[in-house]
Amino acid sequence: MAQQPSIPKGTRDFTPSEMLKRNYIFDTIRSVYKSYGFLPIETPAMETMQTLMGKYGEEGDRLIFKILNSGDFKQSVEASDYANATSLSLANKFCEKALRYDLTVPFARFVVMHRNEIQLPFKRYQLQPVWRADRPQKGRYREFYQCDADIVGSDSLLNEVELIQIIDTVFAKFGINITVKLNNRKILSGIAEIIGEPEKIVDITVAIDKLEKIGIENVNAELLEKGLTQEKIAALQPILLLQGSNEEKFAKLKDILASSEIGLKGISELEYIFKMLQNVSLRSTLQLDLTLARGLNYYTGAILEVKANDVEMGSICGGGRYDNLTGIFGMPGLSGVGISFGADRIYDVLNQLDAYPNDTKEATKVLFINFGDAEVAYSMPIIASLRANGVACELYPDAAKMKKQMQYANDRKIPFVAIVGGDEMAQNKVMVKNMTTGEQSLVEKDSVLSFVE
Amino acid sequence: MAQQPSIPKGTRDFTPSEMLKRNYIFDTIRSVYKSYGFLPIETPAMETMQTLMGKYGEEGDRLIFKILNSGDFKQSVEASDYANATSLSLANKFCEKALRYDLTVPFARFVVMHRNEIQLPFKRYQLQPVWRADRPQKGRYREFYQCDADIVGSDSLLNEVELIQIIDTVFAKFGINITVKLNNRKILSGIAEIIGEPEKIVDITVAIDKLEKIGIENVNAELLEKGLTQEKIAALQPILLLQGSNEEKFAKLKDILASSEIGLKGISELEYIFKMLQNVSLRSTLQLDLTLARGLNYYTGAILEVKANDVEMGSICGGGRYDNLTGIFGMPGLSGVGISFGADRIYDVLNQLDAYPNDTKEATKVLFINFGDAEVAYSMPIIASLRANGVACELYPDAAKMKKQMQYANDRKIPFVAIVGGDEMAQNKVMVKNMTTGEQSLVEKDSVLSFVE
Repeated sequence: MAQQPSIPKGTRDFTPSEMLKRNYIFDTIRSVYKSYGFLPIETPAMETMQTLMGKYGEEGDRLIFKILNSGDFKQSVEASDYANATSLSLANKFCEKALRYDLTVPFARFVVMHRNEIQLPFKRYQLQPVWRADRPQKGRYREFYQCDADIVGSDSLLNEVELIQIIDTVFAKFGINITVKLNNRKILSGIAEIIGEPEKIVDITVAIDKLEKIGIENVNAELLEKGLTQEKIAALQPILLLQGSNEEKFAKLKDILASSEIGLKGISELEYIFKMLQNVSLRSTLQLDLTLARGLNYYTGAILEVKANDVEMGSICGGGRYDNLTGIFGMPGLSGVGISFGADRIYDVLNQLDAYPNDTKEATKVLFINFGDAEVAYSMPIIASLRANGVACELYPDAAKMKKQMQYANDRKIPFVAIVGGDEMAQNKVMVKNMTTGEQSLVEKDSVLSFVE
Repeated sequence: MAQQPSIPKGTRDFTPSEMLKRNYIFDTIRSVYKSYGFLPIETPAMETMQTLMGKYGEEGDRLIFKILNSGDFKQSVEASDYANATSLSLANKFCEKALRYDLTVPFARFVVMHRNEIQLPFKRYQLQPVWRADRPQKGRYREFYQCDADIVGSDSLLNEVELIQIIDTVFAKFGINITVKLNNRKILSGIAEIIGEPEKIVDITVAIDKLEKIGIENVNAELLEKGLTQEKIAALQPILLLQGSNEEKFAKLKDILASSEIGLKGISELEYIFKMLQNVSLRSTLQLDLTLARGLNYYTGAILEVKANDVEMGSICGGGRYDNLTGIFGMPGLSGVGISFGADRIYDVLNQLDAYPNDTKEATKVLFINFGDAEVAYSMPIIASLRANGVACELYPDAAKMKKQMQYANDRKIPFVAIVGGDEMAQNKVMVKNMTTGEQSLVEKDSVLSFVE
């Protein structure tokens, strides 16, 4: 009895037409990264449990896919211990390895392990899949690609400036109008400080982060629940509801945070980034957004997120500055800043905008019809020469009916069909049919290349 | 206490210089596949256990990396059942998913699931990593890339012919001299038939496969152990020791296999492939090798393996014809033929031959020295314009000492350094230093592009 095949939920196959679109996305991002001098690295799909666990919070630990030790893994847990063990404690015994959850932690691990082989500042890009045991839903997958670029070993804010230029260039190439929302963790710290709750910074940022999704009433309710007094919540309101141009926001914010050194530092960092970006012409809108917090705890400076202006979609790119990521692996004091493009969401946005360039749809240029061995023998050197000159060709493998072969050319959208029969062979020629116009031309054997190019 | 980071044994990080070499290999293979009209697909890293288990023999089942079910996996095995369970039976309960072991089985699964979206004959290529829990050793990894091309839905031997042309072209581009060893499973069946042991075909091919490694004495000993009589082993000797040109071997073989229909069919298939390949000029040596068996049981026709002539190394490419791979997934009668390049071994061969082209080592073309914000503001539009014209540039992010910045350019092998100070700004110019010659040139702001190109 044959199996009905399926794939694990939350994962996807990519057909050739989807691959061409995806490669267009990856190639575009990669080419821009390269033009800024970023270098590629790759890390293994599997990392040790020790490298991954505890880096993404409790929820993250649950969502990491763990790999069963090969061989007799059962030996590591006695039957008498099994009964009272939890699944998580068992996973820690049965598994030494897990699938990477993002590219940032593996990158930090890479920098520490290869510190003697790399030059600082080290600018790397990495385009690889990551795996998360999230509940699958529209636009959320259990296997998806991240496209990261990071610079480690430089505190300079020019790195932030260049990363925003990269974002601007990538989305300009895609033809997607975007808004880059910017904030700074230091400003958020300043806010927690001036309302007298510096130790509640995480609760406050988590609540603020939800402003757009759940509205101000619910954010205030959550802050109350987390133990902030009504008075302190009231003090937060002018900040949450700050309106106006970026300049106006900066001006008001300087007033509000006048007594917070760290808050003012955050403002001056962002002002510098905005100022330096005026040296180049950006297509994107830059927006100071104090409600932007970003979930990950390791950010310490500028943070950013990108939204498409013309399509309803979550963040399509994000990033920020982290001051001590490699510290957990024994290498403190190395500052980093990075961005990550969400290839899967960009794919959906480009589909909605129907914004793929036409040539991503084309592949084979000429199909040679197969009438039998003699004709094939005549065609083979012609085909070899076309391919050597960069023209993708196919020889139909079977001497099937002409109609079937032409149908294949049609289905595959192959623009030229080469027909070689006895007459063409006798004349040292090839009949070439342009499938768009329907026109047929009898072409010298040696001229097929210039004809189809 | 900081962790000492490590990666799982048998896996590898790839540094930028290794990535450039690897991408050269992948890009070369990909470009040749494309020139033959093959289309890209990708499948998920994880497949269901049902898809993978039982497809690679008992040994394969053991070597498949299994992924622990997320959530409360412990629920699926009662404590009372745990004591008597084996690790393998537990794995089947704890795990629904596993990492793919090769690209062929996922491809068969893909064809069956997408049969209504693809046109037959379907020519696909796929370059993705696979995972095996093999004991790591020199040249054998637990994560490695396969670079496969297959055609399904066509019985034509022209597919075999084109795959050999692909192999020839790829290794010509790499500058690696190779021998393509060819055999046919039907010939092996014919041999088993004429010595009167058709049901021992697997044992015989497994033993013959080891001829080169363990020598004729040991092969004969193994055959004896598997239950072949001395008489039958004697009958095998002329075949095992067949010498001469391909034509001589074919002639002798036709005599030996005269009474085996399937054996003669195998010979005539190979003769056709050799004949048709004479229509194009190949660089590679083609060799009929009756001791080539290839381990995988699903092959039914032509099989091939590639060896580098000038480097001691195992097979660097292999493949063959399989008549019923999709049958296990409920779609019988679809013939396929494919090849797979061993990217990791090719990497090692190219390293041994030092045969990488020079330009795989280069990345950033111009480093702009950073003297401070005013100079950076002047440089930014120049840099943006160079990048827009395809010239990879870097701006040193910190206004560090000149020496340190020059050292960075040296370490990174960046060929040009652009120096912008007060003088250059006053004259609307840029000082460009050629790092190879040491020469410095004062260049108009708008002429940097043509100067460094």
